[in-house]
Formats: sequence, C-alpha cells, structure tokens
Amino acid sequence: MNDYNVFCVSDHTGVTVESVAKSVLAQFPRLEFSLITLPFVDSPDKARAAAARIAAVSRALTFSTLTDPALRVPFRQAGLSLFDVFDLIGPAVETAIGQSATPSGGHTHGMAPDYEARMDAVNFALNLDDGLNPERLGQADLILVGVSRVGKTPTALYLALQYGLRVANYPLTPEDLEQQSLPGVLLAHLPRLRALTLSPERLAAIRQARYPDSRYASLTQSRDELTAAERLFARHALPVLDTTRMSVEEIAARLRHP
Amino acid sequence: MNDYNVFCVSDHTGVTVESVAKSVLAQFPRLEFSLITLPFVDSPDKARAAAARIAAVSRALTFSTLTDPALRVPFRQAGLSLFDVFDLIGPAVETAIGQSATPSGGHTHGMAPDYEARMDAVNFALNLDDGLNPERLGQADLILVGVSRVGKTPTALYLALQYGLRVANYPLTPEDLEQQSLPGVLLAHLPRLRALTLSPERLAAIRQARYPDSRYASLTQSRDELTAAERLFARHALPVLDTTRMSVEEIAARLRHP
Repeated sequence: MNDYNVFCVSDHTGVTVESVAKSVLAQFPRLEFSLITLPFVDSPDKARAAAARIAAVSRALTFSTLTDPALRVPFRQAGLSLFDVFDLIGPAVETAIGQSATPSGGHTHGMAPDYEARMDAVNFALNLDDGLNPERLGQADLILVGVSRVGKTPTALYLALQYGLRVANYPLTPEDLEQQSLPGVLLAHLPRLRALTLSPERLAAIRQARYPDSRYASLTQSRDELTAAERLFARHALPVLDTTRMSVEEIAARLRHP
Repeated sequence: MNDYNVFCVSDHTGVTVESVAKSVLAQFPRLEFSLITLPFVDSPDKARAAAARIAAVSRALTFSTLTDPALRVPFRQAGLSLFDVFDLIGPAVETAIGQSATPSGGHTHGMAPDYEARMDAVNFALNLDDGLNPERLGQADLILVGVSRVGKTPTALYLALQYGLRVANYPLTPEDLEQQSLPGVLLAHLPRLRALTLSPERLAAIRQARYPDSRYASLTQSRDELTAAERLFARHALPVLDTTRMSVEEIAARLRHP
C-alpha cells in the first residue's frame, strides 16, 4: 500500500497548487496517488469544511495556496500535513527583499490586465487557423507551418490562451509539398515562420485515429509528406521543432524560448 | 527603487515555476518586477551559464524548479538568492511520507498519457464550436450556452487544453431569445448545460472592440439579450456563471467544481 489521496486546497482557482503538487510528487516515482482539488476555499467556514473532509480520508497529503495564514489553521488543528506554497517559500523571499508579505495582496489569476489580449489572441488563432485569411499573416507574432495533423492548431491555441501570443497556422498540402519553395503567401513572413514536424509513425497514428485505413493515414503517405516538408523547411532555413515526444506545454516553451 | 528582475529557472518548461513566482510575488503588492523565464536548464553547463547571466543583473530574484540538486549549486556559488520549489517543499513531503525524493523521478509535463485526450478535446471543441454539429452534443462533457461574445469559445478551448474535457458551445441568437424555452436541440442535454453571462457594460465593450458603433454592440442590445437569456436560464434552472470579473482560469475552475 503506497497510495495517497492528495488534496490541493486553494483560496482561488487551484491552478498553481495543482502544478506544484504534481511536480513535487513526480519526484517520488514509487508513490501512487489520486489528486482532488478544492478551489475557492476563501473563508474560515470553507477552510474548516475542507479540513474536516480531508481528515475523514486515510493517507491524505494536502498541498495548499492559502494566502491568509488564518485559513491554514483548521488544517493543522485537524492534524493534517499541510504543504502550503506561501508558508514554505514566502519567508525566504521576505528575507531576501526585506519586506513582509501582505496576505491579502491579491491573486495572479484575477482579472489580469492581459485578459483581453489573451481573448483577442484566441480569436486571432481561430481566424487564422488552417491557412484562413492569409492577408492577415502580417499581424501574427508567429506562424506555424507543417503538414496536416502535426499539432499546429492546439499549439497556436495554447500560446494564445496562456501567453496572449497571436499565432497563425498554415497547413502544407500535398500540392504545396510538390513545389520547390514554400507557398508565396508565406515568403513575406519568413522570420516569423516556425516549422513543426513529427515522426512518421506518430503522425500516421494520429491520422489513423481520425481516418482509419485511409491512404492519408498510411505510414507511407505520412513519411512522404514529412520528408517533402522537411526539404522545404531546410530550403528556407526555418527553425524546425520535432514534437514527437513533447507535450503542448513543452512545444510552447520551446517556441517562446528558441 | 523597488524593482526586481525575477528569473524563473527550470529544467523543463518553466510552467510551474512561473506560476509559483507570480503567486508568491503577488503577496508583495508594493514590489514591481519584470519576469524572465529560462527553461530547459538541464545540464551543469546550462546551469552555470544561467547563473552567470543572472549574476550580471542587479536586484535579481531567482525562483527555480531544478529537480537535480547539483544544478542548483552554480546559482548558490554565484551568491544568488535561489528559491527552489523542490528544495523548499520536498523535505516536508519526504518527512510526511517517509520516502526520499528521487531527483531524476521525471517530469509532470512530459509526454503525459493524457496528451491525446487533450488534443481530441481541442478538436471536439472546434468541431462543436458556435452550435456546429449539434447531433454530436451527446458526446460532450459540458455544453456552454450564452449570447454571442460571452466567452464560450475561449472557455471551451481552455477546458480542453488544460483538462481534456470535451466542451461544446451553443450561441443563443436573437431569434432563440424570443422563444419561451431553449432551442429543442439542447433540451435533451439539460444536465450538462452551463450558462455563461456577463454585465451588459462588459459585453457591450467586448462587442464594440469587434464591431464598433453597431447596433449589435450597443449597451441596449447587450442588456436586452442578456435579460432574455437569463430568463431562459431560469426557466430551465440552469447553473449560471457571471464571468464579468473572472479570468479564464477562474471560469474553468468554477465550471469544474460547481
């Protein structure tokens, strides 16, 4: 029995504490756990209710981002192990900068000033998805190119939602791949082009899930398209990212920090 | 002068450490800072280069998620204040569970098994965006309803990318709003419907940005549509979320944890 019930308690969305809990627990590979998030625990009553709920569970671990130290008290009174991000990291920062933390200081994920930029970026990604509206490519921060199903759309949407980047994507069709250079509409934007590629096996598997047993989804077709695309990428010296083993977070980070 | 240069150093994408740094620093409201992320610092050479870069900057604070303690050494040798998430939280977890951390334990954000589920969910959200393909609504985990520009699409995409949820969205047109009940195609799915609303002022501002000075973007039209929509939501006792002051993270968290 090496199983734990891991609770992520937050006075806001729980995004940060979930991320911390998963990262820290990944350091304990033999540990198996299920993760339960309790967000918006922002009053003493809610804190007591959450503590009572967790205390009723055996083998519980509790990570938290509770800005008000008073909200952590019910958990400790219930005898729970509480790993609070502010509690564990805050004092070191206070010492380094010579200021005390203000528990009501505010939330990162509130109605941030970049909210509208992110929503605009989502609309931009949708309006310039899959080669649509190429006359607006000049407004893009980045332009993703690659063959069908290489992961362009989810990557563009992630960069928009997470960072407010305006990312277009342009698919290379079999006809494009027969040419000696990239489509003319892209040539004016070479510095902002980023090429995505995959292993042929992975691309074929993704296409199979969508169009089983089609020529489009065959390993031969996938390999031929990727080879032709990589030739075009080399022709124009584009930065190429092989996303075969990458999560969307990693693809996004590598595109932002080349 | 209360400005700091805050560095987020990670041996992987930096998503977790950015989130922690922003949350912790939000507790110091008088502190102004710019944030620089240095991801993929995964070798001693890269750690030394990052440490040298930061050491050359005045008033630097460094947050990190460096799983291998050896990678933290160059930063401390350079005399930097390093707030490492694993360093500060790991020992408490080790004590609680009676196991030692394995620094090479792996990353949360690697090629997670849920990657394909998330990509499928993005495709689902796009295929069932804005009322498309209503015959597939039965496959949705959630169905967002609301008037035009209330935030349905970004919310559906965020839930897909972040959590792999299959979320459809259905716009209520002015014609729908004149009826006595929701469109027939939605009635079979009432338990999975979630209504979004906004203040009329905010909705009008969002619409103005897109279609300036149109009737569609007027405060009167926005108010009339929202009033009619809220009447329909009440008629079917739908859960309603007023997203006026919410980030997309908060909207997502409130939909996941009603």
